[in-house]
Amino acid sequence: MRLVLEALEEGKLKRIARLFRKLHPARIAGLLESLPATERAAAWDMIDGERTAKVLRHLQEEVRRRLAAEMDLDHLVEAARGLEPDDLVDLIQDLPMATGRQILEAMDRRERERLQSMLSYPEDSAGGLMNMDQIAVRANIRVGTLLRYLRLREDLPPNTDKFFVIDRKQHYQGMLRTRRVLTARPETLVSELMETDFEPVPADQPSDAVARRFEEEDLSSAPVVDADGRLLGRITVDDVVDVIREQAAHAIMGMAGLDEETDMFAPVLASSRRRAVWLGINLITAFLAAWVIGLFEGTLQQVVALAVLMPIVASMGGIAGSQTLTLVIRGLATGQLGGGNTRILLLKEAGIGLLNGLLWALVVAALAILWFGDWAIGGIIAVAILLNLLCAALSGVAIPLLMRRLGIDPALAGSVVLTTVTDIVGFFAFLGLATLVLL
Amino acid sequence: MRLVLEALEEGKLKRIARLFRKLHPARIAGLLESLPATERAAAWDMIDGERTAKVLRHLQEEVRRRLAAEMDLDHLVEAARGLEPDDLVDLIQDLPMATGRQILEAMDRRERERLQSMLSYPEDSAGGLMNMDQIAVRANIRVGTLLRYLRLREDLPPNTDKFFVIDRKQHYQGMLRTRRVLTARPETLVSELMETDFEPVPADQPSDAVARRFEEEDLSSAPVVDADGRLLGRITVDDVVDVIREQAAHAIMGMAGLDEETDMFAPVLASSRRRAVWLGINLITAFLAAWVIGLFEGTLQQVVALAVLMPIVASMGGIAGSQTLTLVIRGLATGQLGGGNTRILLLKEAGIGLLNGLLWALVVAALAILWFGDWAIGGIIAVAILLNLLCAALSGVAIPLLMRRLGIDPALAGSVVLTTVTDIVGFFAFLGLATLVLL
Repeated sequence: MRLVLEALEEGKLKRIARLFRKLHPARIAGLLESLPATERAAAWDMIDGERTAKVLRHLQEEVRRRLAAEMDLDHLVEAARGLEPDDLVDLIQDLPMATGRQILEAMDRRERERLQSMLSYPEDSAGGLMNMDQIAVRANIRVGTLLRYLRLREDLPPNTDKFFVIDRKQHYQGMLRTRRVLTARPETLVSELMETDFEPVPADQPSDAVARRFEEEDLSSAPVVDADGRLLGRITVDDVVDVIREQAAHAIMGMAGLDEETDMFAPVLASSRRRAVWLGINLITAFLAAWVIGLFEGTLQQVVALAVLMPIVASMGGIAGSQTLTLVIRGLATGQLGGGNTRILLLKEAGIGLLNGLLWALVVAALAILWFGDWAIGGIIAVAILLNLLCAALSGVAIPLLMRRLGIDPALAGSVVLTTVTDIVGFFAFLGLATLVLL
Repeated sequence: MRLVLEALEEGKLKRIARLFRKLHPARIAGLLESLPATERAAAWDMIDGERTAKVLRHLQEEVRRRLAAEMDLDHLVEAARGLEPDDLVDLIQDLPMATGRQILEAMDRRERERLQSMLSYPEDSAGGLMNMDQIAVRANIRVGTLLRYLRLREDLPPNTDKFFVIDRKQHYQGMLRTRRVLTARPETLVSELMETDFEPVPADQPSDAVARRFEEEDLSSAPVVDADGRLLGRITVDDVVDVIREQAAHAIMGMAGLDEETDMFAPVLASSRRRAVWLGINLITAFLAAWVIGLFEGTLQQVVALAVLMPIVASMGGIAGSQTLTLVIRGLATGQLGGGNTRILLLKEAGIGLLNGLLWALVVAALAILWFGDWAIGGIIAVAILLNLLCAALSGVAIPLLMRRLGIDPALAGSVVLTTVTDIVGFFAFLGLATLVLL
């Protein structure tokens, strides 16, 4: 990357073009993403025409959309021809409607119909993940015939570890592993080698369920069928790996209110606007907490030590709660939580909250007494911390479960709601107790 | 899962055994992980002997270790025989030394030597990921001969999309795609079909670099070589998928101070102990913030509104900073940040901090003036928020870069350090300014 930046500064564009010819398209995409906007545009022009498509496929959504928007249509159509159908479908979904339609119109009829049928499935479903490069065979042919057919094709699509067996009406009947073909005698019938107990993937299955199945069963590819059991295409593991990466990025970036397809070097104004929303949401919760504190202005005025110690109560609750929350969100995502075991988890988390609440209540109380020389304040902060940690454990389990039921993604909003609860409970318990005891 | 829990309650163990016979081992592992300890042990006993190994392989580390520790050695050795070498190596690494040694001793000599050479590589390196089920061929044989050899083997290992070409001394020379074998004429020489420009993976390459390469180049398998270029084994995409999942879990769980291999139903005492450490670290930072507030006790006593508003300043800084931090940590993880572009990113983040700082400073100031009817407090909180958001942007970039240089994983400790900084700066700026202006 340093090389590219230096070459750009010195205006040595040819050196970049030479470097790009040696690199894997995915590497080039990564390099482009790590360049600021103007440098990115300059480097983009240095990519060989035929490789544009491959680099485009590896770019993240936002960067891809931005670069594609600046290409003229002829270039874009030319690049689109170099893409595999599933990647092309992704690209079209990212482009403005009009541009997408123009690309489709530039394709030949057969290709266009294929793409349109793929575009009819949501991006995050099996139909949106699939490719149409599967090799389908009939059950009644012999391995020798199949091999002769394959030799005529000269090459097979990547990740072809299975052929699919269909009947006359395109219904999926089973799959035939390529390794069985390699080890079988030529006179064997496909029907003797095929496996019929492999469940095909329904086209409307959500992509995270597809990913989990690939992961659990160590698949390289899987057939996709429509509601009538007709073979539509296949999903390959490379696309599943992308789904898994995106899910992970979504979970991590989502916790900070960011989009996983965020361009690191998006214009300042666009980035500011998007982040402002998250700050605004947080501001509401911060004012809620401030309002709770405001209820006890009189108490604070008389015992200012409370103002000094109150953030500790809130913060311990927030940390303990987010540990429980993280565990529960993960349990929900992996499907291991729900049904019979939530009550047991709730009890366990409450137990942990109790133990850690007792431990840290004692520690903080001791430190507070040392600091302010006031036994009452020590007692009050101990009770408040214990209460807040118990409440944090319960909210950590309850909030994501409730959000899930309401159809909200707990990974995105869970921690905001949780810290609101632990802040309010923390401040209220601490200052409320102090008002009762000290005044 | 509800089914299993109900059946356990009613003591209908046979029903569980029947259910388990129908499920994929990965599904059973998931089920076991979602059961509380006693129920888990009861269900575990219901798994067919021959499937124990496969379920064991899919269990997460902590659960696996706990269940394996309770099995008697004969059972364990029998189960171990059913595992693929790379999974067996993982298992042995999780078990107590003595048990691991006993399993090794129960293997035959050839198998044991193989395992020992695999055990010599760290778990998170290419050597630790690899299997030794690769098929190696010589460059000077013909496809027809290769096919005859394959037919003798009857079956190939899963995920065999390439054969590897080696010389007399086991040196890696290139790879031969199975799809080329399927489409080639029998008289073609392997040397004509093999690809020599595919770089093998060095055994000491870290597993996250391996995962990135698989992802970027859409690989199904790759050869692993030692420092002399000798072929040691191969890595398959199913293991890479596990690495990616683990990395993601590590990042998400790590932010809450949890281990990604945490058993959701670990005993309360063990869980409490582990989480207490994280709470203790947080307590230190909370006391630092409290200490800063304590510096201004006199001011707080005179203007109690400051105590009400101060958490808002700290909280806005924390949120804005964690957005920058998340972006930078991700940039470091994908390798897109570092070298030439950090300065540009710093400027961009500072710009965003300035814009959002101005926006929210005005909003909060207006609300504060409305609430307390005091123009001076409005002005003070506006300046403090602006300062804290700028500082949050700078720390969000600087802290992870610094940690990286010190060899600390920023995904684990970054957010604790960041919120310490934004808390301290927020409280100090707000209360300090108030002391200067109001008193």
